[in-house]
Amino acid sequence: MLVRFGVSIPRELLERYDRMVRAKGYTSRSEALRDLIRNALVEQEWQEEREVAGTLTLVYDHHTGDLPGALTGLQHEHHHLIVSVLHVHLDRHTCLEVLVVRGKPRELRGLADRLGSLKGVKHSRLTTTTLGKDLG
Amino acid sequence: MLVRFGVSIPRELLERYDRMVRAKGYTSRSEALRDLIRNALVEQEWQEEREVAGTLTLVYDHHTGDLPGALTGLQHEHHHLIVSVLHVHLDRHTCLEVLVVRGKPRELRGLADRLGSLKGVKHSRLTTTTLGKDLG
Amino acid sequence: MLVRFGVSIPRELLERYDRMVRAKGYTSRSEALRDLIRNALVEQEWQEEREVAGTLTLVYDHHTGDLPGALTGLQHEHHHLIVSVLHVHLDRHTCLEVLVVRGKPRELRGLADRLGSLKGVKHSRLTTTTLGKDLG
Amino acid sequence: MLVRFGVSIPRELLERYDRMVRAKGYTSRSEALRDLIRNALVEQEWQEEREVAGTLTLVYDHHTGDLPGALTGLQHEHHHLIVSVLHVHLDRHTCLEVLVVRGKPRELRGLADRLGSLKGVKHSRLTTTTLGKDLG
Repeated sequence: MLVRFGVSIPRELLERYDRMVRAKGYTSRSEALRDLIRNALVEQEWQEEREVAGTLTLVYDHHTGDLPGALTGLQHEHHHLIVSVLHVHLDRHTCLEVLVVRGKPRELRGLADRLGSLKGVKHSRLTTTTLGKDLG
Repeated sequence: MLVRFGVSIPRELLERYDRMVRAKGYTSRSEALRDLIRNALVEQEWQEEREVAGTLTLVYDHHTGDLPGALTGLQHEHHHLIVSVLHVHLDRHTCLEVLVVRGKPRELRGLADRLGSLKGVKHSRLTTTTLGKDLG
Repeated sequence: MLVRFGVSIPRELLERYDRMVRAKGYTSRSEALRDLIRNALVEQEWQEEREVAGTLTLVYDHHTGDLPGALTGLQHEHHHLIVSVLHVHLDRHTCLEVLVVRGKPRELRGLADRLGSLKGVKHSRLTTTTLGKDLG
Repeated sequence: MLVRFGVSIPRELLERYDRMVRAKGYTSRSEALRDLIRNALVEQEWQEEREVAGTLTLVYDHHTGDLPGALTGLQHEHHHLIVSVLHVHLDRHTCLEVLVVRGKPRELRGLADRLGSLKGVKHSRLTTTTLGKDLG
């Protein structure tokens, strides 16, 4: 259910904001504001140890020792946190893998540490997002 | 080709670092250091407008207007930047989509703004990673 | 001059937001929203190479070589970027120094690199803020 | 006391790193590495709720209601967390104030929320740094 409320704001501030909103491609100022609000709430979800969603991006060289085996093994140990995986071959040596993950922030950070610390993983990044509940 | 160099460091600092390295699951201090180095280099790649890889994570409600159509249309307009897409159904309404993207940081940020600003997209995050070239 | 506009928003989203706003100590939802807007604009200022303000925080051991002399020398070379400096003695060895800086983001990042790379500086952080123009 | 250890690393990776180290103004690769290590440890301090140092940067319009009084009052309530304050007049209306703070991360975040949410504060930023203990 939609509700409506009013915001008072200095004219100059609103004009600057409207320019930025248009530059980013928004068709409505309300939608841009709702996105600011949702971003702030998602940050909070990750601080409060609620169940969240995330993505874990790994770039690695699959020729390193038994890295593919180690990655697969570790991922299966944590299968309850991993929803699915997308694998891209960046070049002859380099793989990019994105895991969609779901769980408590602390568990997801632990998994990211374990996978990111494997030899041959060149870069790893845990991205914080949300299950989207109560985010309109 | 591997080379070897020496680092001198206060003993206390090294001990604290070794504890952190073990806590994260690294089996070797060298590997942990190489990861710190690679992270610093990847940050730099994104500032220098070199070709990079990234992932763009979107959480959205597919029941919003013609959001699936709009997302598909915009993605096809930028197909040269998008390597592939993984889609997960989080619940009856909510989708999580991860795009693996590749291009200049400026182009990828533009694409992220366009997709993230669509009505119905609840959260969007551009994650900076790398094509892995010259990162050992 | 204040203007007023309306935002429509799903009721649940607004309720969650209001709880966060109260938890942070805001007395009005409008003020919290204006802060979100200003934050987004300040981020943009730092990407657009407009003149900005910032603070540069350094933690260092003043017993290291001629670090105090080197810091003073470098700061004077860049005196046009440095508005003023606050110095705190954290313990017998350790100093915390905050420089209020003002200039183009690129210049400020360069200064931060130069000071942060001096031997004996244990931690340095450039904080992005604003001259406050047109931010209501 | 200084100790020394060896790192093995692919030649290309080391060459790229050395270029970045020089560009940032470091005179030694070891010093650059020690800084990467210290940064990682300081991040960890803020997650572990150890006592830390920080700076809190506020930009505000001192003509707003009784903002100067409110800021002073709140700061005195938290005087045990605030080491000292530097105040800069950016223009006729706008002040920049940096507080050097010291305490548990949770307390410092709470203080930052309280001050940042006051009406008239245009931008606030809590910067995470360290008391410098055991950081070499």
